[in-house]
Amino acid sequence: MANIAVLGYGTVGSGVVEVINTNRKNIESKANDNINIKYVLDLREFPDDPVQKILTHDFEDIINDDTIDVVVEVMGGTKPAFDFVKRSLEAGKSVCTSNKELVAAHGDELMAIAQENNVNFLFEASVGGGIPIIRPINRSITSDKILKIMGILNGTTNYMLTKMSREGLDYGDVLKDAQQKGYAERNPAADVEGFDACRKIAILTSLATGKRVDFNDIPTEGITNIGKKDIEYVNKMGASIKLLASADLSTENIWARVAPTIIMQENPLSSVNDVFNAILLEGNMLGEVMFYGKGAGKLATAAAVVSDIVEAIKHKGINLGVNWSKEKQELSDINEVEVRELVRVSYEDENKAKEGIISLFGEAAFIDLDENDDEFAFLTRKMREGSLKEKLGSLERSGSVKKVLNNIRVEG
Amino acid sequence: MANIAVLGYGTVGSGVVEVINTNRKNIESKANDNINIKYVLDLREFPDDPVQKILTHDFEDIINDDTIDVVVEVMGGTKPAFDFVKRSLEAGKSVCTSNKELVAAHGDELMAIAQENNVNFLFEASVGGGIPIIRPINRSITSDKILKIMGILNGTTNYMLTKMSREGLDYGDVLKDAQQKGYAERNPAADVEGFDACRKIAILTSLATGKRVDFNDIPTEGITNIGKKDIEYVNKMGASIKLLASADLSTENIWARVAPTIIMQENPLSSVNDVFNAILLEGNMLGEVMFYGKGAGKLATAAAVVSDIVEAIKHKGINLGVNWSKEKQELSDINEVEVRELVRVSYEDENKAKEGIISLFGEAAFIDLDENDDEFAFLTRKMREGSLKEKLGSLERSGSVKKVLNNIRVEG
Repeated sequence: MANIAVLGYGTVGSGVVEVINTNRKNIESKANDNINIKYVLDLREFPDDPVQKILTHDFEDIINDDTIDVVVEVMGGTKPAFDFVKRSLEAGKSVCTSNKELVAAHGDELMAIAQENNVNFLFEASVGGGIPIIRPINRSITSDKILKIMGILNGTTNYMLTKMSREGLDYGDVLKDAQQKGYAERNPAADVEGFDACRKIAILTSLATGKRVDFNDIPTEGITNIGKKDIEYVNKMGASIKLLASADLSTENIWARVAPTIIMQENPLSSVNDVFNAILLEGNMLGEVMFYGKGAGKLATAAAVVSDIVEAIKHKGINLGVNWSKEKQELSDINEVEVRELVRVSYEDENKAKEGIISLFGEAAFIDLDENDDEFAFLTRKMREGSLKEKLGSLERSGSVKKVLNNIRVEG
Repeated sequence: MANIAVLGYGTVGSGVVEVINTNRKNIESKANDNINIKYVLDLREFPDDPVQKILTHDFEDIINDDTIDVVVEVMGGTKPAFDFVKRSLEAGKSVCTSNKELVAAHGDELMAIAQENNVNFLFEASVGGGIPIIRPINRSITSDKILKIMGILNGTTNYMLTKMSREGLDYGDVLKDAQQKGYAERNPAADVEGFDACRKIAILTSLATGKRVDFNDIPTEGITNIGKKDIEYVNKMGASIKLLASADLSTENIWARVAPTIIMQENPLSSVNDVFNAILLEGNMLGEVMFYGKGAGKLATAAAVVSDIVEAIKHKGINLGVNWSKEKQELSDINEVEVRELVRVSYEDENKAKEGIISLFGEAAFIDLDENDDEFAFLTRKMREGSLKEKLGSLERSGSVKKVLNNIRVEG
């Protein structure tokens, strides 16, 4: 019999209880043990829910109970989650969490504590919701050097960008719709500013390098700057726009970034729509593999947490030994990274504008949506991001264009 | 130090040696042990290859060497592979194999022997080449009841169908091209008749049910019957045609099948092209997840084998306990399964043909490619496959159409 305690009875926590109760027979056969949910910790009361019988308001009940094998942390945030998780591991209990903030901020430290105490710290649900990605990186892609990670890691923004593309709507309108549907929070910053995707790519990059990638070091742009007009150009290119979280580990100059990115049709990420997430990995031996599925949602996320519970029960007393050291992984200056961009400019004199662009950028592919407005766009060739920024500054200062309206990175 | 022996120095076997030598540092850090390739078994000589130094022609050298921890079986076929693998497991050595024929025919038995001897029988590379799919099913999708499996599991036929669709070529021409490029064998039956995909879906369905699915029970059709004209209708539908291997486990009437299938654009499998493979799983909790990547190729397949070697080394003396019993999983009569089909017919009198179809099939969506030829197609509604077949027989006998030219299943 394995006893577990669930910290937090919110969306994911109640999902964990539901998944275990619905699929108990399957799950216990995979875990090769019976599962008993002994405690649920929450400050609230749930008088109409059977969980009330096992509810506690005091974490000390759990930490002092030696029969608890696995603690499931699904409270979110780092306070008091970090303290609870740390104490659980130190007390010889494995911890399974969906908490990307906790993992991104303290993953290296918690992993080390788990190792010292011969238990496991597992976090499949922290990236990609229900998509198996953490265990595949740790257990399946073990014979490759990972060269590249590209992910659509935030369902809310992907829903919004998909809706903007399909229905020609502007940012503000789709945000309202996403909030009404419950996909976006009243304060949507964590999603639309890219903070959520930033923490997730920090976790994946840490696992790929085996070192600690600080999410504060990752240049992060959200989608608030993407408008209806930008999307019209993207549609004309036959491409998609996604909030892309990526990391390049192919050289010693490792970098990571989160930014809205135009993705050409050949890339399998271009057809990942709505609230779906996907992660594309490139290995030096196996080439490209992609993992696709629901990146959020109560049951999908809970299913990933429960798969960690199964793993923890099967490996009682055996630390699975994931490589995530405390050594810091330095990231390269993003200005040194080569990029290609779609640049929208307004003009007074179209010919003068195009001449100015060609003299600065050399070759450039022009895209015009409407002969009767005063703007067009052009695709640059690949160049260092720093020198692209400089050129865009020079272009405005030269007076050959009126204004650079927007510039968006393009991925092949 | 972990000592391994590789049985067979063909494409995959030489790939395994190459992957280990190229990524040795990474791999040994993941395995937490050094790896020594102590023997390579092959009947041939390789005088210009460093492998010659560790080459043996006699399996007895390997089986009698107590220092060998892991045997890598990449010979293919079942004779003598089955005997070698069985004896290795009985001698307390873990086995990693890419051999789908062996796994489909003897997986249950070899799994039991591995369990008795506290070693592991691993076969990640037997389905989907480099795509992690076996371990994700066994280790990640453990909290779900798998309801559905849909896979593009054969790269050769996917390359051929993609080329037919894009270039308007006929079957015979793309087969020649695939043979020239080395994607298809001189005797292409295993691929184009669907035998390869059949074994792979049998393996996946066995793992999902935990019982033994006999590949001989799976109705299997290849792509030899698909022509240029069929593809024109598919293109007009905005859909794709794929050799689809599928299994339905959502009710007690479990079935599996391999057949060319029209896949509508909304399904993420529809954009899996060329030699790529993909497997879409539906869980009762996590919804749809898809795994995508290179389904074949020397290094991709070898990378999957080496990831099994890492797993075997990490779990020395610990059987990972996969649920694949010897109990037979009976499959339902495929005639009872509900399908929808695209049916091509030729006619003498177009109106009479359409009236005949409507009177037999009720509603039907007609698709006409060319007003001037003597054929059109129609999409049936969903009905039992058996009754659809009967209706097609009646349609021909009624004389309202000249001939049923082809009928192809359609997946949403």
